Amino acid sequence: MATFVMQALGCEVAAINTVQFSNHTGYRQFSGRRTPANELKELYDGLRQSYLTDFDVLLSGYSPSAEAVEAIGTIARDLRYRSTVHPGGFFWVLDPVMGDQGRLYVAEDIVPAYRALIREADLILPNQFEAELLSGVSISSLSGVANAVRTLHAVHGTRHVVVTSVRVGTAAEADAGSNTLTVVGSTKKQDGSARLFKIDVPMLDCYFSGTGDMFAALMVARLREACAEANLLARPSWMPDDEVEAVDLPLAKATGKVLSSMQMVLEKTWTARDEEMKKFGRSPGASVGGVEGEGETVGEGKRRFLAETKAAEVRVVRNARDLRHPEARYQAQAIEV
Amino acid sequence: MATFVMQALGCEVAAINTVQFSNHTGYRQFSGRRTPANELKELYDGLRQSYLTDFDVLLSGYSPSAEAVEAIGTIARDLRYRSTVHPGGFFWVLDPVMGDQGRLYVAEDIVPAYRALIREADLILPNQFEAELLSGVSISSLSGVANAVRTLHAVHGTRHVVVTSVRVGTAAEADAGSNTLTVVGSTKKQDGSARLFKIDVPMLDCYFSGTGDMFAALMVARLREACAEANLLARPSWMPDDEVEAVDLPLAKATGKVLSSMQMVLEKTWTARDEEMKKFGRSPGASVGGVEGEGETVGEGKRRFLAETKAAEVRVVRNARDLRHPEARYQAQAIEV
Repeated sequence: MATFVMQALGCEVAAINTVQFSNHTGYRQFSGRRTPANELKELYDGLRQSYLTDFDVLLSGYSPSAEAVEAIGTIARDLRYRSTVHPGGFFWVLDPVMGDQGRLYVAEDIVPAYRALIREADLILPNQFEAELLSGVSISSLSGVANAVRTLHAVHGTRHVVVTSVRVGTAAEADAGSNTLTVVGSTKKQDGSARLFKIDVPMLDCYFSGTGDMFAALMVARLREACAEANLLARPSWMPDDEVEAVDLPLAKATGKVLSSMQMVLEKTWTARDEEMKKFGRSPGASVGGVEGEGETVGEGKRRFLAETKAAEVRVVRNARDLRHPEARYQAQAIEV
Repeated sequence: MATFVMQALGCEVAAINTVQFSNHTGYRQFSGRRTPANELKELYDGLRQSYLTDFDVLLSGYSPSAEAVEAIGTIARDLRYRSTVHPGGFFWVLDPVMGDQGRLYVAEDIVPAYRALIREADLILPNQFEAELLSGVSISSLSGVANAVRTLHAVHGTRHVVVTSVRVGTAAEADAGSNTLTVVGSTKKQDGSARLFKIDVPMLDCYFSGTGDMFAALMVARLREACAEANLLARPSWMPDDEVEAVDLPLAKATGKVLSSMQMVLEKTWTARDEEMKKFGRSPGASVGGVEGEGETVGEGKRRFLAETKAAEVRVVRNARDLRHPEARYQAQAIEV
């Protein structure tokens, strides 16, 4: 997901795969292998010995172990060092993949490994739960999110933060069907204070896998583009002046474009999934993949779940145009809480 | 290379990586790991258990061992079996990567492993040397290529063949600078005879890596497109009628489009490489990557070689438009030899 999205937006990508799995884990079954931390280091050393480390941006995502997180830190530190003579010549986008909605889906020792690293990243992209884990601030309202972001700025020094999926609506709102997802971001000022913006997007009633990677990859391209327009690429961490208001931040503009692309692709995926599942409904069971009568006995419920998961695979390749040319759907709003 | 090119043309790709290397082997140094044959099988079994094997096309390329070649054969056989009820519902493009210009760059036992497999593939894409290895016919002229292709049709039963890089010009022609590369293809008739076509393309004086994968990946998309237009996708191996002439074969039309895209991208890469190397020339040595004075002592010759190799990395991402919308540069010619 991340590699293709960045390539679709014109980035030359050198991908170090932290896993090779048969399918995403949303299927609840998969085969394959996690890349050991020493292999990640060896791959980077291979790049280095051939002078192939002149990267503008590092995007780090899912890491299969605490040692892998540390290896990524070592790699990022080396890339930072190599760009010392070119401020802004290296930018690290860190997606601290740990869990979602109160549930950790990585080993527990990964949490402190990320906590130790985030001060070195330029932009971090936690979801609501990950923002709680990293900041130590529990979030049950928009002001909770704001406090978590302020803590990340002040205590961890993180310059740019986007909390990618905030669900803090009241139960009454949810019951009334007004389900929105809020994205909250901020670029800190020199005194460490926050410039908070938010964007609300309608929540689609469907579980998509890979949307975190999609967000991060779009952000890499869109933030660089916005910072190039604002002539910030030669500054450390591409930091705008203190005078720039929250809603005018390059980060805010980039977030709007990223979310527009995502909603366009996810809406189309959602529609296509429903079409697909109608077919499944008409001729259940054996019609989905496979040859009949070869003795595979899988419950109808499981089979439907797998078919539904496949049907919800984000249709990003055939909608690459929406990545490149999103409608201007969303505009950041300032938040004062 | 192969994954991005297919994605750029709208194909949803499930990639099983047969290696994870830091860089291509043209750098003459790399780190990383070959995927063992049993992992290839496990990944496929993972896809299978979640009903994710409804592929239209399999493209198989570089395989790191004879066991890996056999594993790919097992996977292809299973995909073929699953499509039994849908003739043409599965198509296997096999690129028998073994060597080039008289030099084998894989283990010797890979040669018989491919020889045993090619009868099961629908389209094979050997270069001149690989066509010699597979057919047992040595090639030193266009009629040699024709004989090799006839042998592959008749003895191995291969339905579609493209020999991707034929260099059979005389030494005098080469000295006169009229360097062309010839691509020769054929789709057999029901009686096993060949329908041979060729396309000449100007040879660029530069070593590019990944062009074999680029050719194969473009071919997957363009052959399927041409066969869809000719309404052949429901026939086994997408076979056209015997009446179709060599130059009107879907394979011939596809080859023309593939080569147009490739030449456009390679010409741009060539120009960009020269620009890049001019910069290198002005400030040699330490200017390429890395921080000065950290004690890396690499000879100037090696450093230039590595820089040149990097500069010749095929610029496929930023020229994706040329993949999608090639000029109509090349037209197949019939050959009677």
